[in-house]
Amino acid sequence: MTRPLRVAIAGLGTVGGGVLKVLSERRSELAARAGREIDCILVSARDRKKKRAAAVGNIPWADDSASLAASDADVVVELIGGEDGAARLLVEKALKAGKNVVTANKALLAYRGAELAALAEEKGVVLRFEGAAAGGIPIVKALRESLIAYDVVAVKGILNGTCNYILTQMEASGRPFADILADAQRLGFAEADPTLDIGGGDTAHKLALLASLAFGIKPDLGNIPIQGISHITPHDIAFAREFGCRIKLLGIARRLGDRVDQRVQPAMVRLGTPLADVDGAFNAVVANAGEAGPFFFEGRGAGEAPTASAVVADIVDIARGHASPVFGRPATSLRAAQPAPAEIVKSAVYLRFDVLDEPGVLAEIATHLAKSEVSIESMIQRSRAPGEPVSIVMITHECSHEAVVRALKVIAASDRVLGAPCMIPMEAG
Amino acid sequence: MTRPLRVAIAGLGTVGGGVLKVLSERRSELAARAGREIDCILVSARDRKKKRAAAVGNIPWADDSASLAASDADVVVELIGGEDGAARLLVEKALKAGKNVVTANKALLAYRGAELAALAEEKGVVLRFEGAAAGGIPIVKALRESLIAYDVVAVKGILNGTCNYILTQMEASGRPFADILADAQRLGFAEADPTLDIGGGDTAHKLALLASLAFGIKPDLGNIPIQGISHITPHDIAFAREFGCRIKLLGIARRLGDRVDQRVQPAMVRLGTPLADVDGAFNAVVANAGEAGPFFFEGRGAGEAPTASAVVADIVDIARGHASPVFGRPATSLRAAQPAPAEIVKSAVYLRFDVLDEPGVLAEIATHLAKSEVSIESMIQRSRAPGEPVSIVMITHECSHEAVVRALKVIAASDRVLGAPCMIPMEAG
Repeated sequence: MTRPLRVAIAGLGTVGGGVLKVLSERRSELAARAGREIDCILVSARDRKKKRAAAVGNIPWADDSASLAASDADVVVELIGGEDGAARLLVEKALKAGKNVVTANKALLAYRGAELAALAEEKGVVLRFEGAAAGGIPIVKALRESLIAYDVVAVKGILNGTCNYILTQMEASGRPFADILADAQRLGFAEADPTLDIGGGDTAHKLALLASLAFGIKPDLGNIPIQGISHITPHDIAFAREFGCRIKLLGIARRLGDRVDQRVQPAMVRLGTPLADVDGAFNAVVANAGEAGPFFFEGRGAGEAPTASAVVADIVDIARGHASPVFGRPATSLRAAQPAPAEIVKSAVYLRFDVLDEPGVLAEIATHLAKSEVSIESMIQRSRAPGEPVSIVMITHECSHEAVVRALKVIAASDRVLGAPCMIPMEAG
Repeated sequence: MTRPLRVAIAGLGTVGGGVLKVLSERRSELAARAGREIDCILVSARDRKKKRAAAVGNIPWADDSASLAASDADVVVELIGGEDGAARLLVEKALKAGKNVVTANKALLAYRGAELAALAEEKGVVLRFEGAAAGGIPIVKALRESLIAYDVVAVKGILNGTCNYILTQMEASGRPFADILADAQRLGFAEADPTLDIGGGDTAHKLALLASLAFGIKPDLGNIPIQGISHITPHDIAFAREFGCRIKLLGIARRLGDRVDQRVQPAMVRLGTPLADVDGAFNAVVANAGEAGPFFFEGRGAGEAPTASAVVADIVDIARGHASPVFGRPATSLRAAQPAPAEIVKSAVYLRFDVLDEPGVLAEIATHLAKSEVSIESMIQRSRAPGEPVSIVMITHECSHEAVVRALKVIAASDRVLGAPCMIPMEAG
C-alpha cells in the first residue's frame, strides 16, 4: 500500500463536519477502496471555539485557512463557500502550490471555473467538485467520465432543493409562496436570506457547471438568464394541474446548432415524466446523450450526508490517482459559450393574464398574440369571485419565446390587464 | 501526450460494431478526454464474411479470438458473450497475459466474477464491466466510486428491458403474456429464445454484479431465487392498478443484519414511485445509500448506443490510468454472501386465487392464511363471467414470505382452488 493520502479541510460546517466524520468512522473501508489510508492532517474553520463533531479530535488546527495551501497536505478540501474571499484565496493558493483540490463551492466555480481548471491542469493537479452540482447525485462524474461516447444534446434539472420543496408544498397546501417560504425558514429548509435559492442564482451556478461538462464550454454565468419562483401563484399551480402539468424550477442547457441555450426558469413539466415526479428537497438531472438516449438521475440535493458523500468520493478518487481534466476536456480546449439568439428558442408556453371582467378583453389579448404569430392550443377562463379580476390562462402551440415576450409587452400595457402577465414555458420532463 | 492506447475487440455484433464506430468517429474527442489517442489494432468475430460496419476498415483481423490475449493490445474488449466458451477463454488468457479487460458479459461475471477479479488484481490490471449491468446507466461506476461514504443498504432495479417492455405492453393492451411476447419477438424486442430474459436469469446475472459492488460480497448466482414473468396474467396487471400499483420484474438485493437477501421476482410497486414509472425497454436502479438517501438512475438498458457508451467509457478510464478494484473493494476481501433465512424476509404481498364460485371458499382461504398469521389488508372478489371461476385477490399486511408460501401450499391443495395461487410481494419503488 502507498503512503497515506494527507487531507486538509477548510470549513467545518454541516458538510465539513460530515466529511470528517466519514473519514474517521469509515477509515478502513475507505482505505480498502482507495488502496491507501486517508489521514486528515489539518483543519480550519472560522470559529475555533464553536462546538464541533467529535471527529475533529486532536487534528491540528490552522487559524488562517489560506495556510492550508502551504501545509503538507496532498489534497486541500475547500468547504468555506462563497464566490470570492477566503474560499477563492485558498483554492488559488493551493492549486498554485501544486496541491489537489476538492470543493463543493458552486459559486466559485461558476464564476472562475475555467481559470481554476486551467491553473490546475497547468500544475498537473486535480480539481474536483462533485458536491457542487446536485448534492449527492454523481452527475459530475457521469458527465465527465460516463456519458462521453455520444454528444450530450441537453442537460436539465431540478438543482435547488429549497425551491422544489416550496413548489411541492404550494401544490400540496394551495397556500401562497410567501407563507410557504416563511414556514420553510422556520423549519430550516430555507436560509434566513433565501435570495440565492428562490431567485434562481444557486440553480444557475450549478447549471453553469453541468453545461460546461456536457458541452465543453467555459462555465459562464453571464450568459444564463435567470428567473426565480417568487412570482408563481397558487393559481398557476392549480391551472398547471388542470393542464396535466407541474411547475418546477429548472436549469436548462441545450445545444442549438453551434450555440448553447442556457436558462434558469420555472417550467411546466407534464405529469408522468421523470422531472414532474421529483418531490420535496430532492434534486434530479436529465441528460440527453444523443443516440444513447436520455438518462435520469435523482437524489438528495443538499445536506450533510449527500454532500459529504460527494466530497468523500472525490477524495478517494484522488487517493487512487484518478485524474481527468476538471471539466472532462482539457481546460485550454473549453470554448466560450455562444448563447443561442432569443428568436431560435421555441416551445409551447403557459400564459396567465389577470384581467378586468369586461367584454372584449379576451379578443384584445388574442389579437395581440395572433399578431406575433402565437397561436393558442387550449384555454381556461375563470372568475375568482363576482366583481374580482378574471384569470385567463392558456397553453400556446410551439412558438418563439421572443415573439411571446413581444406580445406580452403590448398586452401588459392595456388598462384592462392587471399586473404583469405570467409566462411559463412547457419543457419535456 | 502518452502513446496511444491499443485496443483489441472480440465480437463485432451490435455492441462491438457500435464501439468500433464511436472509437473511429469520435477519435479526437475521446483523445482529448483520455489524454491519449485510442487505436483499435485488432478485431475478431465469428464470421469474417458477414457485412460489417464501415468502421472495421483495414483493422487487422484475428480468426481465433483467444489470440487477442497474445497481441500487442493494452486492453482486450470481450463482446462475445456467454458464461463460458470463447468469452471465458479470452478473458482468462488476457488477464493472465497482464492485459486490461473490458467486457459487457454479465453471465461470465455473475458466474466467475470473484475469481476473475482476483486474477486481474493479482496481475495488476483492470477489469471493467459497465456495459454488463444496466446498459448505458453508469451504475457500476456509481456503486464502485461514488456511493461509498455511507453503507448501501439496498439496491434494486428493473434490469431487463425485454421484461419491462412486455409488462408495459400487457398493461397498455390488456392482452396476455404469450401474445405480447410473440409480438416482441416479431419486432426484435425479444430474442428467438427468450428464456434468459423472461425467466429472470438475465436480471439475476446483473443483480449479482450490483450486489457485489454494493455489499462487498462475491457475485453469487446460486443464492439468488429467480422467478420470471410468464405466470403474470392481464388480470394481475388490472388488479394491480386497482390497488394503485404496477407489476415490475425486479432484481432486489438488501442487507438484513449481516445477511444479504437477493431475489429476482415480479413485484408490486406503488404508482408515483420512481420504479413504477419506468416504461418500455428502459432500465432503472434504486440504490439506498443509508444517510445519503436513495438514489435513482434510469436509462436505456440495452442496444447499440447505450451499451457502446458504457464500454467506451470503460476504455477511456483505462486510457487515463484509472484503476479501482473490480468490485470496488479488493477481490481478496469480498465475502461469500450469507443468504438471508427465508423467515426474516417480510413485506406485504398481493395474492390471487382462482376459485370455484361456491359458498365457503373465501372462508377456507382466509382461515388458512390466518393460521399462518397472514392478515389481509384489502380484498377484491370478482366473477369473470357467469359459471366461470372467480378471482379472489388481496393485499396482505406485512408478513413473512415463508409464512405465506406455507399457507399457499395448503390452500393450493383444495379442490375448489384452481391452478397455483399467484403471490407477488409489494416492494417500495
